[in-house]
Amino acid sequence: MHRYRSHTCGALRESDVGGIARLSGWCHRIRDHGGVLFIDLRDHYGMTQCVVDPDSPAFKLAETARSEWVIRVDGKVRKRPAGTENPDLPSGMIELYITEIEVLGPADELPMPVFGDQEYPEETRLRYRYLDLRRDKLHQNIIKRGAIIDGIRRRMKESAFFEFTTPILTASSPEGARDFLVPSRLHAGQFYALPQAPQQFKQLIMISGFDRYFQIAPCFRDEDPRADRLPGEFYQIDVEMSFVTQEDVFQTMEPVIRDTFREFADGKPVTDVFPRIKYFDALLKYGTDKPDLRNPLIIADVSDEFSREEVTFNAFKNVIRSGGVVRAIPATGAASQPRSFFDKLNEWARTEGAPGLGYVVFEEEGGKIIGKGPIAKFIPDEVQAAIRQKAGLKAGDAVFFSAGTEDKAASLAGKARVRIGDELGLGDKNQFAFAWIVDFPQYEWNEDEKKIDFSHNPFSMPAIEPEEFLKLTDADKDRILKLTAYQYDMVCNGFELASGAIRNHRPDIMKKAFGIAGYDEQTLEDKFGGMYRAFHYGAPPHGGMAAGIDRIVMLLCGAVNLREITLFPMNQRAEDLLLGAPSEVSPKQLRELHIRLNLQEK
Amino acid sequence: MHRYRSHTCGALRESDVGGIARLSGWCHRIRDHGGVLFIDLRDHYGMTQCVVDPDSPAFKLAETARSEWVIRVDGKVRKRPAGTENPDLPSGMIELYITEIEVLGPADELPMPVFGDQEYPEETRLRYRYLDLRRDKLHQNIIKRGAIIDGIRRRMKESAFFEFTTPILTASSPEGARDFLVPSRLHAGQFYALPQAPQQFKQLIMISGFDRYFQIAPCFRDEDPRADRLPGEFYQIDVEMSFVTQEDVFQTMEPVIRDTFREFADGKPVTDVFPRIKYFDALLKYGTDKPDLRNPLIIADVSDEFSREEVTFNAFKNVIRSGGVVRAIPATGAASQPRSFFDKLNEWARTEGAPGLGYVVFEEEGGKIIGKGPIAKFIPDEVQAAIRQKAGLKAGDAVFFSAGTEDKAASLAGKARVRIGDELGLGDKNQFAFAWIVDFPQYEWNEDEKKIDFSHNPFSMPAIEPEEFLKLTDADKDRILKLTAYQYDMVCNGFELASGAIRNHRPDIMKKAFGIAGYDEQTLEDKFGGMYRAFHYGAPPHGGMAAGIDRIVMLLCGAVNLREITLFPMNQRAEDLLLGAPSEVSPKQLRELHIRLNLQEK
Repeated sequence: MHRYRSHTCGALRESDVGGIARLSGWCHRIRDHGGVLFIDLRDHYGMTQCVVDPDSPAFKLAETARSEWVIRVDGKVRKRPAGTENPDLPSGMIELYITEIEVLGPADELPMPVFGDQEYPEETRLRYRYLDLRRDKLHQNIIKRGAIIDGIRRRMKESAFFEFTTPILTASSPEGARDFLVPSRLHAGQFYALPQAPQQFKQLIMISGFDRYFQIAPCFRDEDPRADRLPGEFYQIDVEMSFVTQEDVFQTMEPVIRDTFREFADGKPVTDVFPRIKYFDALLKYGTDKPDLRNPLIIADVSDEFSREEVTFNAFKNVIRSGGVVRAIPATGAASQPRSFFDKLNEWARTEGAPGLGYVVFEEEGGKIIGKGPIAKFIPDEVQAAIRQKAGLKAGDAVFFSAGTEDKAASLAGKARVRIGDELGLGDKNQFAFAWIVDFPQYEWNEDEKKIDFSHNPFSMPAIEPEEFLKLTDADKDRILKLTAYQYDMVCNGFELASGAIRNHRPDIMKKAFGIAGYDEQTLEDKFGGMYRAFHYGAPPHGGMAAGIDRIVMLLCGAVNLREITLFPMNQRAEDLLLGAPSEVSPKQLRELHIRLNLQEK
Repeated sequence: MHRYRSHTCGALRESDVGGIARLSGWCHRIRDHGGVLFIDLRDHYGMTQCVVDPDSPAFKLAETARSEWVIRVDGKVRKRPAGTENPDLPSGMIELYITEIEVLGPADELPMPVFGDQEYPEETRLRYRYLDLRRDKLHQNIIKRGAIIDGIRRRMKESAFFEFTTPILTASSPEGARDFLVPSRLHAGQFYALPQAPQQFKQLIMISGFDRYFQIAPCFRDEDPRADRLPGEFYQIDVEMSFVTQEDVFQTMEPVIRDTFREFADGKPVTDVFPRIKYFDALLKYGTDKPDLRNPLIIADVSDEFSREEVTFNAFKNVIRSGGVVRAIPATGAASQPRSFFDKLNEWARTEGAPGLGYVVFEEEGGKIIGKGPIAKFIPDEVQAAIRQKAGLKAGDAVFFSAGTEDKAASLAGKARVRIGDELGLGDKNQFAFAWIVDFPQYEWNEDEKKIDFSHNPFSMPAIEPEEFLKLTDADKDRILKLTAYQYDMVCNGFELASGAIRNHRPDIMKKAFGIAGYDEQTLEDKFGGMYRAFHYGAPPHGGMAAGIDRIVMLLCGAVNLREITLFPMNQRAEDLLLGAPSEVSPKQLRELHIRLNLQEK
């Protein structure tokens, strides 16, 4: 018989009854039923009820066992007595009568139990992560995380992508966040950087003639703590393809992500064909470029309606006169809500820095729809009707208004849309609602510096004929600010899951694009020299995207905290409590790295 | 038709003749045959011969194309004229007659060509890595590397292993090499370390109750340049299993590695069942713990023979008297070698610091085997016969001797064995000859400090009953120095491919093991606190190994330089010439990281 086990703790079945078996595992729960000990023995594969009574030679040692001791037991497999079967457990029809026991790994008094669902402070959970990871939910999340990554990898390979590994000790990458730096021992005063993303490398791989790249890529950003991102490192499914258009990226990656979600969504619906929403439409209709499409509410612009002469609501009219807008957020069925519903939303709006949310409630009276509420009287009936039409409202609905500069009104309307949808319980939360956000602007106006700036990624390809683009001059400012880029996001349930672009692979267009934003070629050479040089030696058109693995896993595990889906996370202060990092190092190490501490600011 | 291609450059066949096609790719080679241009268009998938003549509207633009320009061509697929087919090329029966051409990415004058096999200086190759990677051999090596990793991953999953990702920003790991450090911004004066190996994490994963771990793991060691290791980062296939013995690890991993080699060995034989060689036997028989078993020569100890009274060769007798040994290295069939063969080996031995290699040549004369050579006369016939017997020699063979302290004699004999085998062309080089090296000693005598030290890994489990081990005292010094550990290497063709152990999972044994080597429990807590603590909360018996991916790929690609099988390697000075790392950083970055440069030593 094997030194430690003939079966795993999840393997024994009724067909094994009568045989002998050897199991090894952790004592999950130990119960003493009138002198008979029941030990639920647990391993990665399952749980088996083991029984020992004073007739067994193993009884004396078994009595000493405590929770989370690792033991080996030999015994006879027998049917559980009638009425004590556990149909929830695959091994629930049998038990093992222990005849021999060996303690493989005893346990001290536990700082947190493994058995049960009690909550424990995060510090305890991270310091004793190996105990936390034995708990069922977290254990299953980690396994599911791995299975999701396997699923993505399999689908990428089936789509003829090839997996690459790019360097981790590298040069600073122009992703805009802060780099983690690694002092060089061999080159005094110089530093490596950990990659914020393998963006430059994946483009270089395309320029090297490999056609379809992907990587489950570790990325490093030295950012201040954020609830939605673990400090330090995170993982992306990183993709790049040569000789493709934006449409090819969509056609390739939409099935990969959709089918991965379908595989792990536990039956929840997943969008079949991802709608494509233009960036500016998203801002209008959802008040954000990361819309949660589970929420059916669609915001409408009603600036025209409030501008009409017969409207006497001056607060809004003044906003519009000074260049602002008014947005209408429908609240389907809200007419039946108590006054407190409207008051609460208004209060919330004030915490967002707005003067409040105007609203109108529509009710049917004598075959006519009547608008009610504090500001209804300032809006003549026919304008109310126009607003109803624009915002898709009927009797029994209400509408809220968000007024202000376009940015602010859109943002407030977006947040109000989410709150209203949640309060009214609109839309099925148990689904994964995807979309592509497209047509991001290439440039934007920098009001502070009175100049044109890149709006998002400077290396995306502008959506215009190259020859036309090269001919643009300062006089084309309006046209330039209206230019879109082949840049896109994939969103799901209000989160940005992925971001990508068709890259600008032509140095002439790159020079022009940077020139428009006020940067000369020297900037390109100084900041992006290696890659800029590469574009001069035969670069193919290419594009791709990167999707956040952690976010995908969180959505599919239904977790609200990244630490619930990560094996050994740091805490929010970027500390590894388990192994103790960061920590002090020796003066010799510092000397070898040609650095000294600079603690004077303390 | 697709914007860039209807087919890849490797797709068109005779069955496509008569159709039209669109291809995109790199101009591999452009030939002008009397006004007709032949462009070999290349992409990741293959090569297609494209033809254009002055009758085509594309001719004028085609004439401007240069090597490595990226172009799109439209044209008619036609059969190549009889006699011009290229059977070596899958598309070699057809060519594309170009009717339209578009330049997608022109190329400047190339610093190194892609076409052809010429050697280029490493600096050029690394700086323009994207050109180097377009060259066929390197391109194929990178693809093969990926396929090998895929094969290993597939086999690990088939063996019920689960893939994990462990942190990269972590605490210093006790692997003995120098850490790369990352200054913490949030914790002034403290540093993260990049993992030298995920050793602690994989053991913690076992303690967390996950049963079978593997990872294609990035490892980081700040070592001085070595020819056989890339500076900075390298990859391991890292494995750990719970509730296993050494035998289980062998039974599990031997097929994974053997079958991976079989898949990629291009038909070369791979050892069927890996022999297991005890560490001290390996040192005796092969003079190294990394024997190249393709070489059939086996070293023998002939100290007893040279000690005999009737032997008068005092140089060796003196060595033996002062505690040394004499080793015999057979040289099969060497009797027919010219005198220079023996002289050259002697010369080489002197460059190794030895006084020379004594030798005897055995020839048959009149039905008797006669020993010849400078020292033969000091060795009586019957002792020569005994040596022949021990070293497996017959008439027509020769034997060399290596004398000295056991270490030195073994090492010199091992090197001589390799040289002799190579010189005589013994053994088939075209094979992969594997073995497990087992029974490494747990401890060794530190002559300088007059104390017992760990011999290899302090965390391996000693091969002795735990209760006996715990009872050992200072008086058991001899027994302690003879203790072996459950520690093993996998070797292939003279390289250590993998190393592993059954771990010491019991804190009591660990304390004892460290105590024997003169370290108290505080050392364990200070240096390995997180992991040592974990062992107190129910640790399962576990063990595993780690195999070097880069070395495996090198062997299977037949490459002699790690840079031939690595995508974006640094040079031997640990510099990334492509993107420019390491490099200087701004004073602001240093301030944020609470460090200053310390360049005074310059």
